[in-house]
Amino acid sequence: VADGKHKGLWQSFKSDSSGASTSGGDSSKDSSRCSTPVLEADRSDRLRDKMRRRTESGDRWFSLEFFPPRTASGAVNLISRFDRMGSGGPLFIDITWHPAGDPGSDKETSSMMIASTAVNYCGLESVLHLTCCNQTTHKITGYLEKAKRLGLKNIMALRGDPVGADWEEEEEGFNYAIDLVKHIRSEFDDYFDICVAGYPTGHPEAGSYEEDLQHLKEKVDAGADFVITQLFFRADTFLKFLDDCRAIGITCPILPGIFPIQGYQSLRQLVKLSKLEVPEEITKVIEPIKDNDAAIRNYGIQQAVQMCRVLLDSGKVSGLHFYTLNREVATMEVLRQLGLWTEDPRRPLPWAVSAHPKRRVEDVRPIFWASRPKSYIYRTQDWDEFPNGRWGNSSSPAFGELNDYYLFYLKSKSTKDALLQMWGDELMNEQSVYEVFTCYITAQPNHRGHKVMCLPWNDEPLAPETNLLKEELEKVNRRGVLTINSQPNINGKPSTDPIVGWGPAGGYVFQKAYLEFFTSSENVTALLQVLKKYEPRVNYHIVNVHGQNRTNAHDMQPNAVTWGIFPGREIVQPTVVDPVSFMYWKDEAFALWIEQWGKLYEEESPSRMIIKYIHDNYFLVNLVDNDFPLDSCLWQVIDDMFELLDTPPDPLSDGTASE
Amino acid sequence: VADGKHKGLWQSFKSDSSGASTSGGDSSKDSSRCSTPVLEADRSDRLRDKMRRRTESGDRWFSLEFFPPRTASGAVNLISRFDRMGSGGPLFIDITWHPAGDPGSDKETSSMMIASTAVNYCGLESVLHLTCCNQTTHKITGYLEKAKRLGLKNIMALRGDPVGADWEEEEEGFNYAIDLVKHIRSEFDDYFDICVAGYPTGHPEAGSYEEDLQHLKEKVDAGADFVITQLFFRADTFLKFLDDCRAIGITCPILPGIFPIQGYQSLRQLVKLSKLEVPEEITKVIEPIKDNDAAIRNYGIQQAVQMCRVLLDSGKVSGLHFYTLNREVATMEVLRQLGLWTEDPRRPLPWAVSAHPKRRVEDVRPIFWASRPKSYIYRTQDWDEFPNGRWGNSSSPAFGELNDYYLFYLKSKSTKDALLQMWGDELMNEQSVYEVFTCYITAQPNHRGHKVMCLPWNDEPLAPETNLLKEELEKVNRRGVLTINSQPNINGKPSTDPIVGWGPAGGYVFQKAYLEFFTSSENVTALLQVLKKYEPRVNYHIVNVHGQNRTNAHDMQPNAVTWGIFPGREIVQPTVVDPVSFMYWKDEAFALWIEQWGKLYEEESPSRMIIKYIHDNYFLVNLVDNDFPLDSCLWQVIDDMFELLDTPPDPLSDGTASE
Repeated sequence: VADGKHKGLWQSFKSDSSGASTSGGDSSKDSSRCSTPVLEADRSDRLRDKMRRRTESGDRWFSLEFFPPRTASGAVNLISRFDRMGSGGPLFIDITWHPAGDPGSDKETSSMMIASTAVNYCGLESVLHLTCCNQTTHKITGYLEKAKRLGLKNIMALRGDPVGADWEEEEEGFNYAIDLVKHIRSEFDDYFDICVAGYPTGHPEAGSYEEDLQHLKEKVDAGADFVITQLFFRADTFLKFLDDCRAIGITCPILPGIFPIQGYQSLRQLVKLSKLEVPEEITKVIEPIKDNDAAIRNYGIQQAVQMCRVLLDSGKVSGLHFYTLNREVATMEVLRQLGLWTEDPRRPLPWAVSAHPKRRVEDVRPIFWASRPKSYIYRTQDWDEFPNGRWGNSSSPAFGELNDYYLFYLKSKSTKDALLQMWGDELMNEQSVYEVFTCYITAQPNHRGHKVMCLPWNDEPLAPETNLLKEELEKVNRRGVLTINSQPNINGKPSTDPIVGWGPAGGYVFQKAYLEFFTSSENVTALLQVLKKYEPRVNYHIVNVHGQNRTNAHDMQPNAVTWGIFPGREIVQPTVVDPVSFMYWKDEAFALWIEQWGKLYEEESPSRMIIKYIHDNYFLVNLVDNDFPLDSCLWQVIDDMFELLDTPPDPLSDGTASE
Repeated sequence: VADGKHKGLWQSFKSDSSGASTSGGDSSKDSSRCSTPVLEADRSDRLRDKMRRRTESGDRWFSLEFFPPRTASGAVNLISRFDRMGSGGPLFIDITWHPAGDPGSDKETSSMMIASTAVNYCGLESVLHLTCCNQTTHKITGYLEKAKRLGLKNIMALRGDPVGADWEEEEEGFNYAIDLVKHIRSEFDDYFDICVAGYPTGHPEAGSYEEDLQHLKEKVDAGADFVITQLFFRADTFLKFLDDCRAIGITCPILPGIFPIQGYQSLRQLVKLSKLEVPEEITKVIEPIKDNDAAIRNYGIQQAVQMCRVLLDSGKVSGLHFYTLNREVATMEVLRQLGLWTEDPRRPLPWAVSAHPKRRVEDVRPIFWASRPKSYIYRTQDWDEFPNGRWGNSSSPAFGELNDYYLFYLKSKSTKDALLQMWGDELMNEQSVYEVFTCYITAQPNHRGHKVMCLPWNDEPLAPETNLLKEELEKVNRRGVLTINSQPNINGKPSTDPIVGWGPAGGYVFQKAYLEFFTSSENVTALLQVLKKYEPRVNYHIVNVHGQNRTNAHDMQPNAVTWGIFPGREIVQPTVVDPVSFMYWKDEAFALWIEQWGKLYEEESPSRMIIKYIHDNYFLVNLVDNDFPLDSCLWQVIDDMFELLDTPPDPLSDGTASE
């Protein structure tokens, strides 16, 4: 044995920087580790750590700034925009603070509630702006406590604009952003990550550029974790500022604030507010085309892309912050051209993970709310632990009541008129309803020529994997098997599969075929007969609005229907069919008939009566084919049911002749 | 909609007897369910419930009676017998109480400790006999408390034989078994399942057969759950007794006590003790062959089979209780002929489940102790919960110390001489050790002509699935990759597969390929070089006796290496490679070199020095191939390691040339 070699090896053990893996003697026994099979290290970490890791690894990233909307319908739209822009993979978004708009209130349009929605329902890491000027310590502390309670973890600490014309320093209270930084650190210790503003051309009220740099250094020294700059028009402006910051010892991340010019008026207004000057090379191009919005936007995109390229190529910038002005097109286009927009971001789990810190260990959900994830998050928001001690340990998950449930951001995004066009001004019979479902599945226009873009149970377009089942779904919906949820079986596809993949690379994902539908009690009678042939391959649960139900679930245990196997990790089973939760879901699923569809029609009108009849008499059915390596047998089950229904009864039979 | 039909359906819901699945309204939301993905309902239930379910379903079953051994080596043998006879699938075993043998003590031969071992280490449902005659209440309560503490759940309540010649009733204290039954119920409520003895021909001391029947009825009424009868020689004797019991209202299970005649002397002795008469048709056969043990045993088997067939065919008996006299052959043969011996009992999990009630939720273990399950159970016996909050939630599992660890039933079953024959009287060098490992794998005799039947890390013959890897294992052991644990990859075999299957039918089982071995530090240096090519496909953990270690385990998280998917259940992942537990296992794995092997030789002898050298300098390595759907790459990893070692170093290289 070559002892020298051995020694070298041991040295390499010592210098191994992979953290937990290094130890001498028994100390490694005490090493701590995560409490759940974490699929994405990011889930458990602070924004500043994510930022550091991305920077260290050379990954480039971006963030997006939004302001709160003025109206409730504006809020619904903004939240949809969060979902769409969130899919591009921002590291975080931030929500500005509007002192005039009751920003800390529970109003659906307040800065606080918009940021909370982004975190809790859209799963976005979010930064809430907070301005301290003219505020009492008590009020500020109250805002911060509320933010913490709502799951917000990051604050952008700003002075804000003085409300009165002539602003004077107050002896007590907050005069500068640094006061707010200090207050947060003294009252909330290290709980929040804090961001502060930097001014590449100096703050307009600062004595000098150098003095302003010193102020920034003080803010960082007081506890800020990173800096976002005011907008600027030339890459050089930022790069010089960055060098100057580094020169005086500001070492934290400094994010350039990118403002893609999107229109003549918005540019003028912003420049006026921020007391910036638009460089001549820009005004020269813009002035001649100031009435041509499209031309200005195209120029703005080009100009931003060019500037961002210079910043990124400098090697000094790894993240870009975008002032979106709540618009999508320009920012998305800039990000696409820069290659930063991740069209198919890797999903850590098959459903969108909420960014609330309380939910970061959540790794399993019932499949029923797959198309209504915000509703699921809302109904489970009071759970002390996630996923309520794993599904299997939860004897009675306490779901929020349906009557608490109505929230502005769970509203349909469509108007009543649009819904009537899609779902029918007038229903003739149950068949009219079948047609709506069929049109939704096939994406064909209904008999009045309108496409059915959503159903009460599916607020979004069909998932790509549902297309795999389109033909079969169409067939059964046409005959009154009204499907509201389904997934194909998957036997070990790579976790990077663009349609069904999730989790880290190098793994394999699996699914059991699943089908959930409403259907008439006659169909259910035949179905129960047919299902006897499919024991124990098929698990079923059948229930009506009155709670009468029948299932072959073993001891009411959950059935895992989506799971993944990954290198070096425990099995993850993020989706289950849980018979106990199904009894809560059924309340919601049946109520949606009336609340979202029936109520579009006059009381006592035939259309409303048809919906009510279905609500009162149909059953909600879920089926799982446990034999995932084989082709799904669920279509055969439905075929058998129809065949049984189509067979004229044998006069000599006792009704069980088909066996 | 045919309302009549609907009504019929609803009725069938109401009458559905599957328990949890029936409900009106919201009540089903409150239904309780098991806390873990239970694979076998039996695991969570009481003996009396198992018995009832088996009887109701028409399954036939058997139980086995043993008495405690006199010596420690007798205890080691008896425990091996429990393992062998346990594999035939008894519903329970019972251990007699020997008042003269300090039965409640911690001695390895005591009734209490033997029963505890059967429950905790052999995973057998066990009944502990307890006799109350001449005992104080205080002492009896102490025994029962101890039994409860050790995980025993069932007591056979007996009077026992009076110690003195002339027994007299005591005013206070226990005079009859019924006093003990009452005491157990009054002091321990419903905690224990209680069995009492029945006498098909009447208790020898009873006034009459009828009086004795009344005594039995009183014992049952006082709280006994089932009855085991004294032995008898004619089926009719039992069947009449059974009818008489039922006639006076004894409704609990009554198990016939079957005594296969195994020898002339043992028969005479037993008959004398129990004051029974051997029927003439038996003595007539036996007397002429009384010196021919084999002939008597064969007759005994035949006679028992015949009698059991009559009992079972009567339709009144579903379980048979065997007085084994601590012997295997006769009872096993009777059971085989009756078709009650389950050669390949379905394994609920890939490892033997302990029958201790505290461990009934245990559903995951580290793979390292796969060949030393009793050691694992011992080292985790003080855990408050199993599996210590699942592996993933356990930041620091508190394993029992190695120095507490020595227990008589963990002793090698082989003598020192036998071990020296297998492992070598005299080792020449490390190669001598390699030869031992190679012979163990190949089942070929060593150069002195002795087969190597065990190694310190593998107390049992190789598992059948290891044979799948035999050729590769031989190759690497020959070159000093000393394997102590391995499993092949499995990509979804049916759960009923005879070699790798486990869990309920209708499921699929999976494994990642696993290899664990000792090897020299030179090999490890090359291995680490080679492993870079296999990231992240291969997870590794390499450690020496000093605790110097290196791993690429992500955040020290466990890696699931065995899992199963079953109809209507959550995923089960019973085996993991856990980097934290590995640091505890390595202490044990290295200590076994010295304790079990090195100490066979004189101190300072060359053989002992060779073992000590390996102990001090070799590394323990585990490798997991995460890509379970592909052929295992672990053999390629080892091949690459040898290739690198065989390549003469390139003088121009810096040592990383192979990349």
